[in-house]
Amino acid sequence: MTNRTRSNQQVTNQKAKLEMKAAIFNGKGTITVEDRPKPTINEPTDAVVRVVLACVCGSDLWFYRGISELAHGGVGHEFIGVVDEVGGEVKDLAVGDFVISPSSWSDGTCRNCQHGFHTACVHGGFFGQGGDGDGGQAEYVRVPHADGTLVKVEGSDFSDETLASLLALTDVMATGYHAAVSADVQQGQTVAVVGDGAVGLCGVLASKLLGAQRVIVLGSSHEDRHALAREFGATDIISVRGGEAVEQLKALTDGFGADAVLECVGTKASVEAAFAVAAAGAIVGRVGVPHDVELDAEGTFYRNVGMRGGPAPARAYQPELLKQVLDGSINPGKVFDASFDLDDIAAAYAAMDERRVIKALVKVGELA
Amino acid sequence: MTNRTRSNQQVTNQKAKLEMKAAIFNGKGTITVEDRPKPTINEPTDAVVRVVLACVCGSDLWFYRGISELAHGGVGHEFIGVVDEVGGEVKDLAVGDFVISPSSWSDGTCRNCQHGFHTACVHGGFFGQGGDGDGGQAEYVRVPHADGTLVKVEGSDFSDETLASLLALTDVMATGYHAAVSADVQQGQTVAVVGDGAVGLCGVLASKLLGAQRVIVLGSSHEDRHALAREFGATDIISVRGGEAVEQLKALTDGFGADAVLECVGTKASVEAAFAVAAAGAIVGRVGVPHDVELDAEGTFYRNVGMRGGPAPARAYQPELLKQVLDGSINPGKVFDASFDLDDIAAAYAAMDERRVIKALVKVGELA
Repeated sequence: MTNRTRSNQQVTNQKAKLEMKAAIFNGKGTITVEDRPKPTINEPTDAVVRVVLACVCGSDLWFYRGISELAHGGVGHEFIGVVDEVGGEVKDLAVGDFVISPSSWSDGTCRNCQHGFHTACVHGGFFGQGGDGDGGQAEYVRVPHADGTLVKVEGSDFSDETLASLLALTDVMATGYHAAVSADVQQGQTVAVVGDGAVGLCGVLASKLLGAQRVIVLGSSHEDRHALAREFGATDIISVRGGEAVEQLKALTDGFGADAVLECVGTKASVEAAFAVAAAGAIVGRVGVPHDVELDAEGTFYRNVGMRGGPAPARAYQPELLKQVLDGSINPGKVFDASFDLDDIAAAYAAMDERRVIKALVKVGELA
Repeated sequence: MTNRTRSNQQVTNQKAKLEMKAAIFNGKGTITVEDRPKPTINEPTDAVVRVVLACVCGSDLWFYRGISELAHGGVGHEFIGVVDEVGGEVKDLAVGDFVISPSSWSDGTCRNCQHGFHTACVHGGFFGQGGDGDGGQAEYVRVPHADGTLVKVEGSDFSDETLASLLALTDVMATGYHAAVSADVQQGQTVAVVGDGAVGLCGVLASKLLGAQRVIVLGSSHEDRHALAREFGATDIISVRGGEAVEQLKALTDGFGADAVLECVGTKASVEAAFAVAAAGAIVGRVGVPHDVELDAEGTFYRNVGMRGGPAPARAYQPELLKQVLDGSINPGKVFDASFDLDDIAAAYAAMDERRVIKALVKVGELA
């Protein structure tokens, strides 16, 4: 082999190494898998993570359906994987560590992180926002502020079920939990969960974790969702809509309404239902991204009905929820009822868009 | 004296005894003092209270100004006085007891009362709602569910200052306190209080009671209000409005905004300011009755800004606040900067309407 040949071979290898497959948003209804440059360390606080599992979020459907704008580019904000590279200032992580990521990066030190609202970190941002940024539905992701963002998982031998539950902690379970925390769910309470999508189902699980005695789901007519809701702890399921659903819930609560309400959808109708079923003094914990929602300033005032919530600061909850997954107390991974390879991620989006699956898991790489 | 004469005399006496003076709302801008029948026990759980002190509420100005509708009739929902008569089922009160009342009656036993939201009691209602109902700006008031509603004050020898502070517990101080509790004010926090009317000033006092380190008032240009705000614990006062006020507050908080916000006005502009100065994850505790208010469903969502509050369940806070008044820890009665006799209550309304006074106390009867 001449020097020239060897040199060319090196260039080819290097090029192969520097590319990866990533899901790319190409406009309404179009997700393609394309080659993109493999991310590199840009800042000394960065890490690069090799993705093992990713998934599709209900909120990804907003841009997929053309309801919200998104620039062409990398998508996905839910991933678990293995640290592939670290910057010089990363202290708590090493190459080879198995990590779960929140949907956003955060420094962990600013006022907002210290208050538990990592999604409002002054140095933060969300993965998978299109454009040139990194998305989690890809083979590799650059993670800024890696020490503040990633949570290391001890151990190496995990069942597929456990891996799915760890993946759920990146966003969907953290979001259900954030709804329940925001709604201030307390021991012994009656909780209403509006929505039986993956977030709503995780909201049921979270409500039980926080001690709810009764969990009433206002959901769809999908029997598979009802079954999982009951497995997660739902005591009652209301599958009618609108005023009729509100009436049924009132009838179940002596006319008072629910002590705490989780709003897990974000549409005008779901938000109205959430406020309508709230008992006096109850808080609506909202995590459904609001679209064309109007909040009733006066009606809620007279009943002292409150509202909290927003994008889930998953990082705040992951250490605690991780313990619960690893000791088998919770199994939020059950919300994944279909699995796709990264190459087939377009089918995953379509299946979720058409409500054929609750939540689609995306296999990207191997853990070991 | 013939029998006939004596009999007539008795009728006259009885008639005199059965009448009282009461402030009557007679349409926009018109409050008159008229003779009305003295209230009687209608239900065995009623008490009749002889009023010692009453006052005019900022919320009374809504109907006075014609902004909200109110039927001709008795008004006022703030009063302290002496129990004059009790129904057969009243157990905890006796004739002669000195009592403070909340602005609404409540049974104290229903789900909503048990949860601390007495203003949503299933057997409750507000005093002074016009029509034939009883108002607190009168010589006597019938109090339904007296045991659940009234709070007995032990002792009989009180200074005018203490009496004014006890009067403040009926609504204005309870409302400021409710704003602070709703906003979840915690030890060491930076709190923004929107409004420097009597409720806002009490909100300052309440924030300090709950441990706020810094209390920033967004208020008017009234120097007397600033002085009282500072006396109550305000550390900073912003007297500009709108976007400029928001900028000043942000500058005082390293750009983050306040950890908790008390909305004590209820206008579109004040509510907008309250949400704008809230830090990520902060709760706006709102007690200003909202008028033409629009709540920003999306902007608040992304910052995880919450909202709680409504009509203050004064009854829930009175036992604790009563102790604080009696031991001299707080002196909310300082919000009363003018005093009127019941006969002159029209002047009290006018003075408040024209913002010549912060809050008008109304002398109705003697304690002893």
